[in-house]
Parts: sequence; C-alpha cells; structure tokens
Amino acid sequence: MHAFVTGAAGFIGSNLVDRLLEQGHPVVGYDNFSTGFRPFLQSASTHANFRLCEGDVLDLEGMTRVMRGTDIVFHLAANADVRFGLQHPRKDLEQNTIATFNVLEAMRANAVGRIVFSSTGSIYGEADIVPTPENAPFPVQTSLYGASKLAGEGLIEAYCEGFGMRGWIFRFVSILGPRYTHGHVFDFYAQLLDHPSRLDVLGNGRQRKSYLHVQDCIDAMGCALRMAENKVNVFNLGTDEYCEVNDSIGWMTGHLGVKPALAYSGGDRGWVGDNPFIFLDASRIRALGWKPKYSIRESVIETLDWLSKNQWVLVSRR
Amino acid sequence: MHAFVTGAAGFIGSNLVDRLLEQGHPVVGYDNFSTGFRPFLQSASTHANFRLCEGDVLDLEGMTRVMRGTDIVFHLAANADVRFGLQHPRKDLEQNTIATFNVLEAMRANAVGRIVFSSTGSIYGEADIVPTPENAPFPVQTSLYGASKLAGEGLIEAYCEGFGMRGWIFRFVSILGPRYTHGHVFDFYAQLLDHPSRLDVLGNGRQRKSYLHVQDCIDAMGCALRMAENKVNVFNLGTDEYCEVNDSIGWMTGHLGVKPALAYSGGDRGWVGDNPFIFLDASRIRALGWKPKYSIRESVIETLDWLSKNQWVLVSRR
Repeated sequence: MHAFVTGAAGFIGSNLVDRLLEQGHPVVGYDNFSTGFRPFLQSASTHANFRLCEGDVLDLEGMTRVMRGTDIVFHLAANADVRFGLQHPRKDLEQNTIATFNVLEAMRANAVGRIVFSSTGSIYGEADIVPTPENAPFPVQTSLYGASKLAGEGLIEAYCEGFGMRGWIFRFVSILGPRYTHGHVFDFYAQLLDHPSRLDVLGNGRQRKSYLHVQDCIDAMGCALRMAENKVNVFNLGTDEYCEVNDSIGWMTGHLGVKPALAYSGGDRGWVGDNPFIFLDASRIRALGWKPKYSIRESVIETLDWLSKNQWVLVSRR
Repeated sequence: MHAFVTGAAGFIGSNLVDRLLEQGHPVVGYDNFSTGFRPFLQSASTHANFRLCEGDVLDLEGMTRVMRGTDIVFHLAANADVRFGLQHPRKDLEQNTIATFNVLEAMRANAVGRIVFSSTGSIYGEADIVPTPENAPFPVQTSLYGASKLAGEGLIEAYCEGFGMRGWIFRFVSILGPRYTHGHVFDFYAQLLDHPSRLDVLGNGRQRKSYLHVQDCIDAMGCALRMAENKVNVFNLGTDEYCEVNDSIGWMTGHLGVKPALAYSGGDRGWVGDNPFIFLDASRIRALGWKPKYSIRESVIETLDWLSKNQWVLVSRR
C-alpha cells in the first residue's frame, strides 16, 4: 500500500510512519508541525520511501495535491487536547471535524478508497456499560473533543456508504510509549522534575483510566486492516485492565525514586468533562487475534524512561 | 420565554413561530430565505411580539448581535435535503454542523441557556432495533445528513456539559402538514399535477417510512420543554405507525381521483443512503403525556389539501 499519514510528526503518527516504512510501504507524511516534532521524523527522513509534505489539514487544496498517488489514508492529525476544549471550542471543530471532512474530500478527489481514523473512547461519554463495547447504547457527549471525533466518525461512515470507500475507525484509550508528549503521565513527570517533593493532581486520584502502548496500538491497526473487510470497521483499542490515577502515580514515583506530597484538587473529576471511568471492551479486536504485549504499568515505565532521555520535549511543550 | 427561532421562515419553523406567538411569547425569527418562504411569516409579521431578522446562521457575528435579549433558542435552520447530500457534501457540514456550532457560540456570547434542536431519525442509520429507541446501539451513519445532525447533537451535548446549558434534542421522522415544501409527498403531488397518468417512484415502493403532523411535532416539543428538565433531553418524535411508500401513493391518488401508472426505479432503496425502514420508538415522549392527534393518512391528506391551495410553492421550488 501507498500510505498518506496526517499528523505524521505526532506521537502516534511518527511511530506509525516508522512501522510502515519498516514493512516496505511508501509513505507520504503530512504535518503542519503545530504540535508535531521534527526529530520524530529523523529516522523516517533518511528513508528513500518517505516523503514529508509540510501542510495543514485545513488547506484542502494543498492536501489534495500532495495526496495524489496514495491509496490509503491514516488520518491521525487532530487536536488531541481533551482537557482544554472549553477554552477554545473552535479548535476541536476545525482541527477534528472540518479536518476530517477535508481529508475525505481530498480522498474523493484522488479516488483514495481506504481511511484509517484515530477516534477515542471519550466518544462514549460517561458510559452506562463498562467495559464499554463498540455497540454500547447511543452515547451522550461530555466533551468537545469527544463530540468532534464523533462527528469525524459519522462523516467517514457516510462517505463510505455514499462514495464506496472503506473505513477503519479505532476508538483509543490513552496511548503511552516513546514520543508521548501530552497527558497526565507527561504532566506528572514535568512536575516531578520541577519540584520532586510535591505533585498536584487534578481530581481525587480515584479516576479509573485505561492505557495502551503505542506499539500495541499500531499492531492492532495492522491486524484490523488485514482481517476486517466491512464497509465500516469500528474497533475499541485498549488493554484488558484499567488503573487508578493513584496507581500510575505510585508506579511513577517508585520508578523515579521520589516521594512527593500529593495535592489533590477537585472531586471525582479532574476537570469539566473528565470521565471518572474509562475502560473499553476490546473483545472485538481480540477476536481477530490481536493482543497487547505491554501491561499498563510497563507502558507507564517505558514512557517515563523515554521522557527521561528526551527532556527536550518537556522544554518545547511549555 | 423570549424565543430565538432559526429557520423561522421554514416549514416547521414558521409553524412554531405562529404557535409561540399564539401562546404570548415574544419571538425573534432568523432566516436567510435560502429555502424559507416570506408568505409563511405573513401572519407572524402582523404580530407586535414578532421581530424578523434576515441573516445567515453562518454569520456568527450578525447572529450573535440579534440574539441578544432572548433566553431560549429553537434551532431549526438546516439543510434538510437528505437525498442530494452526495451531490454537495459541504452543504451538510456548513449548514448543519458548523451552523449548530455558531448557534451555540452565539448563545454562549449572549448567556442564553436553553436550546431546542431538530435532529432526525436518520441518525440511527439502518437500525438493528425497530422501532428504534433513543438508546439504540451506537449507530453507523449512512447519510451525510444524518452525520451532520449527529455532529450537531454531539456539540449541543458537549456545550450543555461544559457551559451549563440545557438541551432538548428531537429526532424527527418525516414531518407533514401545512407549509410542507419538500419530500416525497411533495414530489408525488408535483408529478401528478404535471402528468396525472404516470408516477415515477424511487425504489420499489416497499420502503417503510414514518411520518408526523407538524402540529403534533410542535405539541411534543412544548410537552418536553415543560416536563423534561435534564441537562440533555433526547426524544424520538413519531407516531406509533408506519406505512409503505405504496400506501401513501394509494391515499394520494385516491384523494386526488387519479389513476397513474406507477414506474418504479431502483431496488429496495430509493437512493444511496435511503433507509428502507424508519420507525422510531416514541414511548419516552409518550410517557410524558404527549400523543399525536393525526394518523399518517390524515397527515398525508391534509398536506395534499394544503398543497392544492398553495400551488405557488410548487412553482417556486422548481
């Protein structure tokens, strides 16, 4: 396959680019470097099969031009910032919903027939059924991020039905691993570097969350692409476990050898729209033969180790 | 309440405006007259409590200005054209998804706390469960129209959660009655005026559809506003019956006294994305005491009678 990857310089995007190149696929990477990092594409850039196109998903014309000749799109570009959605509602609309529309229009113009989409477990809102399966009851959105990804899913499905495309939609839990550059493990690590004796925690630490290692995530996408051939294929991606925020704090502080005083703020939600319990039923993708190689604890530790060796990402994120 | 009605010159919008004025509420009507009709607001215009603002829902600044002083928004402006979505995908994105975002932003700027939204049964795609309840399994979209309304619902829910608004979301079946100006009863009537001896039917006529009279629809919205006070209130609106396209053809030709030859085209779907069976479970709204006054047959006949007396809408729609 000849892949077009949006968000190619991002956390998941750059890991995916490396994997696709490793497997011998030509890749066009598309990124505007608003949150992506050039060093994440260092290895890819040396590869003859890789072409980097700097551009914005909101620039439909430009994206359409450089998509020519590819036959599958991995649409990973997104505003992945769940927490601050309320501070700039337009960002989720533009960078997630309208961007996905543009990707689909560029595909249509280039007769690209397959799209892989990074959706989110946030789309289930506060689910009544936990672990939450893909066919859970029609959810009520609780975040602008979830709403914008829901809109993206709907667009992809309608394009698949209307224009004969095929889609693979993945609802992720939080992803961890090398090149992880935002989220609570990142925030905690940054804090502990600054002031090892104190850790500010949003919420009461009892929020239950689920995580997946980025390599497991990419394995799962590959597995689904090989094995699932419906018009629209929707998969939850997560491990069969969850942890409390307090668990991950324990693993982190133990690994780093620090003993901070924990300063909790807020109640059972870290912020408006924070979901106190995210745990997805991943039996649909497991039935295809995929299983994760990393436990949540291992993912947290490996993320920490990568952050320790790559502290430049902390500096550039502030 | 002081109402702001988008799509005020449309089919449902203008009927709603008349009802609100009748009940003594001041109303600001907003419409760009792209598909709305000035004569539909003739009676409203004579009312001291009514103010018409000509404007576009895509003009956020203008809409924000004229929304000032109102305390509830009935957001009915939409591209309601399900069938031709694939011919202009941007239309649903702009006029349904982005428009709803703009309405919410205008509300936020004006501290308007309540929104009533016209969604659609199309949002369920081809539902596994029929009659389809509001908490049906997470649907897969089959039309750009459904996808754009799903996106609107998600935005409203996220704004309710994030900004303390309250929302009433109504998933309509097809609405019939006075001022009905598009859809298959309209198309059939127009054809039978042109050539009473032949009727072209999209699909095999066996598609099963559900309809509701516009006055029943407005009754239901009022009932839900009085009785349902959750942060987000979602209701299906439909009768407890459905009919085949062939049934409505029989009622129409019988009422008009014509015997056309029926020319079917296509298979069990009238067009790509057409849903061969729409039937909503309306027990949630019925539990609040609402029930429809019109049967589907009565709605079809009344629509026909209105069209016969208002043939100018047929001319202006061509």
